[in-house]
Amino acid sequence: MSDKNEKIEPRLLKGFRDYGPTEQLARQQMFNKIQSVFERFGFLPLSTPVLEYKEILMGKYGDDEKLVYTFKDMGDRDVAMRYDLTVPLARYVAQNQGQLTFPFKRYQIAPAWRGDNTQRGRLREFYQCDVDSVGTDSLLADAEAIACVCSAYEAIGVENYVLRINDRRMFNVFLQANGNNSDLTAATIRSMDKVDKIGVDDVVAELKEKGLSVEIQELANKWLKIGKGMDTLAKMPEVFGAEVIEATESLQQLFKYLEGLGVNLDKIIFDPTIARGADYYTGVIFEWYLEDNWRFGSIGSGGRYDNLVDQFSNQSLPAVGASIGIDRLFEYLEDENKIVFTSGVQALILNQNESLQSEYIKLASDLRAQGINVELYYTAAKLDKQFKYAESKGIPYAIIVGETEVKDGTVQLKDLANREQQTLAVEELAAKLK
Amino acid sequence: MSDKNEKIEPRLLKGFRDYGPTEQLARQQMFNKIQSVFERFGFLPLSTPVLEYKEILMGKYGDDEKLVYTFKDMGDRDVAMRYDLTVPLARYVAQNQGQLTFPFKRYQIAPAWRGDNTQRGRLREFYQCDVDSVGTDSLLADAEAIACVCSAYEAIGVENYVLRINDRRMFNVFLQANGNNSDLTAATIRSMDKVDKIGVDDVVAELKEKGLSVEIQELANKWLKIGKGMDTLAKMPEVFGAEVIEATESLQQLFKYLEGLGVNLDKIIFDPTIARGADYYTGVIFEWYLEDNWRFGSIGSGGRYDNLVDQFSNQSLPAVGASIGIDRLFEYLEDENKIVFTSGVQALILNQNESLQSEYIKLASDLRAQGINVELYYTAAKLDKQFKYAESKGIPYAIIVGETEVKDGTVQLKDLANREQQTLAVEELAAKLK
Repeated sequence: MSDKNEKIEPRLLKGFRDYGPTEQLARQQMFNKIQSVFERFGFLPLSTPVLEYKEILMGKYGDDEKLVYTFKDMGDRDVAMRYDLTVPLARYVAQNQGQLTFPFKRYQIAPAWRGDNTQRGRLREFYQCDVDSVGTDSLLADAEAIACVCSAYEAIGVENYVLRINDRRMFNVFLQANGNNSDLTAATIRSMDKVDKIGVDDVVAELKEKGLSVEIQELANKWLKIGKGMDTLAKMPEVFGAEVIEATESLQQLFKYLEGLGVNLDKIIFDPTIARGADYYTGVIFEWYLEDNWRFGSIGSGGRYDNLVDQFSNQSLPAVGASIGIDRLFEYLEDENKIVFTSGVQALILNQNESLQSEYIKLASDLRAQGINVELYYTAAKLDKQFKYAESKGIPYAIIVGETEVKDGTVQLKDLANREQQTLAVEELAAKLK
Repeated sequence: MSDKNEKIEPRLLKGFRDYGPTEQLARQQMFNKIQSVFERFGFLPLSTPVLEYKEILMGKYGDDEKLVYTFKDMGDRDVAMRYDLTVPLARYVAQNQGQLTFPFKRYQIAPAWRGDNTQRGRLREFYQCDVDSVGTDSLLADAEAIACVCSAYEAIGVENYVLRINDRRMFNVFLQANGNNSDLTAATIRSMDKVDKIGVDDVVAELKEKGLSVEIQELANKWLKIGKGMDTLAKMPEVFGAEVIEATESLQQLFKYLEGLGVNLDKIIFDPTIARGADYYTGVIFEWYLEDNWRFGSIGSGGRYDNLVDQFSNQSLPAVGASIGIDRLFEYLEDENKIVFTSGVQALILNQNESLQSEYIKLASDLRAQGINVELYYTAAKLDKQFKYAESKGIPYAIIVGETEVKDGTVQLKDLANREQQTLAVEELAAKLK
């Protein structure tokens, strides 16, 4: 062991955090609610490793690729920590396609890692709650992924979400105008994607700087000024021509499905300006925001990615998925006092007398056998100290057992909220605590 | 995106694995059962990050230190993936000691990583289920950690465990015989720890080779041949003198507590030969095995570590903990047919007719609102294909809706196990599926 006098400073890496008991209990309850909704929609769990071969993860995230944690392991292999749950899913499906029945519908609630700028409160280790359907091009799968995540938000008390939605195929207009040059088109979209931050004029200026044609600049100007919502969607073909018909009709059908699935269409905004970063999207793309708090940023996102699995497989397996980013959302709910913090422990058995320890132990065992979460204070200590302990853990009841109670087969049950105390027969105790 | 014709082989790193839906559902149920038992004993959850500063983790694992995954992150920081859940706990407690009330009792169910030899079926990413009490030297805390893990095993159907138990302080005999030289003593114990694998004679030969005194060789010979069990424990002071009295009496009191907590003492074996690898143990140490399957190796372990937190803190915070290694145990339970695999989905709504899709969608929404896990088949396909799909996911019921049923407000419910079909009013369906 290292020299005991040489203290190591206990600290966390920037962008990483602990969740103490109170918060973690609440988080687990939140994860359970989300999981129940995911299963309600017929998604089943999958677990994939944190580490993957680096080559599996790279080439899918566009500009963000530099944020992937990569290193060489003991066997000199190039490995990477998963950056999302989508690419590992694609790898899993391709690897096991012979054994799977399609569509393969899975959920995964697990952390991922991005070496992102932490200034805006972004975590480098963050939890995602994902649903995906692989091996189906049905628009109903798109609708269910979206409806499922909307239900999950509602289950955890987030009613004030809005969904901005678009279709990657809309941008075929720009592909055509760029003479089918996909690099130029990607550059065009990347600039347009900044409109929320820098405004239309600066986007157009940037396109000019990048050397894109006047036609593209004018098209982008018109695109970014056309507006949002259902009416805008309806007039897209009229304004931008045949290239957007397929995407327009697909979104219109999607909205019908969503309405059938109980999603409130007032919460959905068609927005031709959203593009999404990851390179793998091919169809519908969407992002959830808090209605009264756009600056908070997106609380979830997803889309259709019909070619991602193809990178690992000769079989074409179109897919669609949606993902909840849970960490900042949890902080938001905390700030809004929408998290109910409960104690995981129902009662503390006080320890007043070492000679009665076997009685305390027996009582704890009995109560636990009856399904009560009960804690035993480990050493005979002043009652004040023990009450403070119970309070700090939010334990609602203290159980007091002295010589008299042992003789009578009773206990004193003290409600720590109002300090009221009552005498109960030992047999009544479990029912009372339940 | 990279060239689509350039396929990347979908594969896993050695020592890493996926858990598909059927297994992962069963694993989650197992984790939930363990978590319930942990909370029953008053432990609350903690979540710590996967990555820590390398200096936090190093210097605590003895010979195994080389197995820790370490690398430099984007900011050129030396970081490491957690190797267990104990050292991060010690770091957390030291870092937050001002805010915590002691004893701090936490559980954590999470993965850890070791670049171990994978030949014996060892995983490099493995899940641990840990309970620890920090800030108490009470022997009752040791007893509760042990009893809690025994209850957790029983909750997941592992009744055939045995617990080998010892106390690090027993080895003070060797420290004294080595003239208080702790390096020599550590070398002595490391050799003795191999007795299960190489036998007593080879251990003594190794001690001789290492240059340890004849006295130590003879002491080790006597130590390794003294036997196991309660009778052996009782005679330790008589055979080895005053140095073992404290540890002996402590273990005897521990066994009394365990009995009071309902642990079957027949499952507990005092074994003076076990030593445990990690450098941080200071008192009781223990390992669980399968009674009829010693070769399987340990299924859990733990012990008291009174100085670990001190490495990060000026306050002394004695601690004790126990840990279940769950992955190989899950495989064992699978092999023994002790895992009940259930489908997470209760019914599949068949899709026979695109024109009825809005009816299917409505029915799915209604059933989900009533708490039924129901899946919608996304495309109109041959019934055979849809039945096969349901079967592959273990879905017990299919719901058939045609023109007639829509008109009558009924559905056909088909039990996929016995192929029996009945007509039900839509309103009866949820109750029937529950």
